[in-house]
Amino acid sequence: MITKEKCEELKKKSLEILKKAGIVITDKEYKEMEIADFGLGMPEIIGLEIVVYENNDRYCAKELIMFPRQVCPEHRHPPVSSKPGKQETFRCRYGEVYLYVSGGKTKNPKAVLKERKEYFTVWNEIILKPGQQYTLPHNTLHWFQAGDGGAIVSEFSSSSSDETDIFTDPGIKRVE
Amino acid sequence: MITKEKCEELKKKSLEILKKAGIVITDKEYKEMEIADFGLGMPEIIGLEIVVYENNDRYCAKELIMFPRQVCPEHRHPPVSSKPGKQETFRCRYGEVYLYVSGGKTKNPKAVLKERKEYFTVWNEIILKPGQQYTLPHNTLHWFQAGDGGAIVSEFSSSSSDETDIFTDPGIKRVE
Repeated sequence: MITKEKCEELKKKSLEILKKAGIVITDKEYKEMEIADFGLGMPEIIGLEIVVYENNDRYCAKELIMFPRQVCPEHRHPPVSSKPGKQETFRCRYGEVYLYVSGGKTKNPKAVLKERKEYFTVWNEIILKPGQQYTLPHNTLHWFQAGDGGAIVSEFSSSSSDETDIFTDPGIKRVE
Repeated sequence: MITKEKCEELKKKSLEILKKAGIVITDKEYKEMEIADFGLGMPEIIGLEIVVYENNDRYCAKELIMFPRQVCPEHRHPPVSSKPGKQETFRCRYGEVYLYVSGGKTKNPKAVLKERKEYFTVWNEIILKPGQQYTLPHNTLHWFQAGDGGAIVSEFSSSSSDETDIFTDPGIKRVE
């Protein structure tokens, strides 16, 4: 749980990164920006800032804002009811992102983990620079870290239901 | 049908608008950019420049690039096989867009039509400035025009199949 003050501070920082990337959001979107700390209480290290543009029963689009070296922890999107799990495309808009999925372990990966390293188990690295993207099949374990200058990632996907995500780290609580 | 030279010229112009908006695309995306003239042979007046980021059987994401006052002609997305028609969200990233859907006719609309005016039948205006967006229900008649400075629109949607679109203008051929 993070304080209201911390939340406001991180929203302001996120807006600065959006401005650097030339991405405009509305006042309502700013107000509703999600500061996800995954229940770990260290949002600048393990966390994610999210603006949901649209999420309906067919598709979803979000902007993910990341501080320098911030990590989105390892998780997957399992099937929900009769539907296959969320399929998603990450498109780097600004900065640099290191995305990890299952497969052969990359030697000398770019990511640097400070906390809870034991809960990051997939190390097949995909580097995304502005204009580059990667589409994850549903139910694929993945995690990602921003580079030294932070990052903005557009996420295009099928419908999103965060509460059904399965995280590797048992200490994580995605939705309060 | 437009010439290869015209196509290259319009791709170059599109890239300039993308650069103004701070949006990066890859060389492959540039190469594959679609210059749609809808078979009318006046692409700068009625036309659209399209970069498809992702189109799979669940969702689709595109960047639409529009020249000053360029018009995307009136059409709708009907049901395909057993699925409801394409549902789509238009998010203005740069410039200004005037979107028209069915409903009460707007007095003094912003759009100015030069050609084939008789095939524009819905006049309920939605003005989109950077950061503003609008989600169209499936099978809704719509068309749009960029403002005087051109525009970039991110389109988030369910799966896209251009060849099934239904246009009001009988002279239009969407896919060659």
